[in-house]
Amino acid sequence: MRTDDAVEAPTSRRTRLTPERENELYEAVLDLLVEVGYDGLTMDAVAARTRSSKATLYRQWKSKPQLVVTALRKTKPVSLHDIDTGSLRGDLREVVLCSRERSEHDAALMRALGHAAHENHELHQALRELLIDPEMVALDQTLRRAVDRGEVAADRPALGYVPHMMCGAFVARPLIDDEPADPDYLLTYIDAVVLPALGV
Amino acid sequence: MRTDDAVEAPTSRRTRLTPERENELYEAVLDLLVEVGYDGLTMDAVAARTRSSKATLYRQWKSKPQLVVTALRKTKPVSLHDIDTGSLRGDLREVVLCSRERSEHDAALMRALGHAAHENHELHQALRELLIDPEMVALDQTLRRAVDRGEVAADRPALGYVPHMMCGAFVARPLIDDEPADPDYLLTYIDAVVLPALGV
Repeated sequence: MRTDDAVEAPTSRRTRLTPERENELYEAVLDLLVEVGYDGLTMDAVAARTRSSKATLYRQWKSKPQLVVTALRKTKPVSLHDIDTGSLRGDLREVVLCSRERSEHDAALMRALGHAAHENHELHQALRELLIDPEMVALDQTLRRAVDRGEVAADRPALGYVPHMMCGAFVARPLIDDEPADPDYLLTYIDAVVLPALGV
Repeated sequence: MRTDDAVEAPTSRRTRLTPERENELYEAVLDLLVEVGYDGLTMDAVAARTRSSKATLYRQWKSKPQLVVTALRKTKPVSLHDIDTGSLRGDLREVVLCSRERSEHDAALMRALGHAAHENHELHQALRELLIDPEMVALDQTLRRAVDRGEVAADRPALGYVPHMMCGAFVARPLIDDEPADPDYLLTYIDAVVLPALGV
């Protein structure tokens, strides 16, 4: 029961996007984001690239920040929520291994959003609510399990800085080493930095 | 012997900028960079803000990437080169304490440059040669002294990732915690993450 929302459709009746069509749209939004940056991304460009009407885009997602962040959330290949391997090292490695082939793409997205998220309050809020907060909750559970298993001391100061360490790995790798933050590098970084900082 | 290079000067004779005038120019470039981002920064805007002629800007700095990176390098308040307190913790803390009042400004600059440096090869090269490589050499010496003093084992894997850890502190703090990467936070991060990862 697919209803395409093509530019030529002149009616204002509400169309329901199929999940496939939604995913196509999200992928196009993220591609555009990497190509032109957040400020350069216009609803016009999204409409043109996806052959949809701007009316449909606004009806479905209300605003550019909402559309961008929903696209990020819906195309996320893996969430910490789904991972529980029985050890902290296993959990962290699993995230990296499941995101294989995505890490350069993700790093490009982070670069495209970094400045914009700071300047644009609505984007920052949407990122926080839809993307950052849920992952922080999941990471908290991952770390809590590690503490419960006795892998990490409950008062280990680095417990509060795991996302900061990982964020640095993504941002610094291309800047300092001129290399992509690929899975091999991330796995090495986990063993060299994250686990030792946690005393594992 | 100050020779101002004002817009009204119609001659093409070479003007020599005084160090004070150069610094004014650099500060203006960095302010603009934070305000409008790298892509939004034009030589016209720099000329207007600093009341100089574009000819002077191009004669002195050749290109926008050169001007931006020279501004970054010349206004850097502190370099690891100048610091040797006798302990690794002391050295790292000294960098933070000497940059006090600059850290939010520096973080804003990093956000403004992160995406641009990846997209623009000339900017990336200039950043690397003028800013990143010299600091990496200095950091290497700092870490080598720590190894020589017996503070850090020579084969400690985290030795290769100190800039990555610090980079993460700057980028992640505003994004995840909604707070600036201020000196208090950075000092805590050094004790919680950097030194434990190095086994200090």
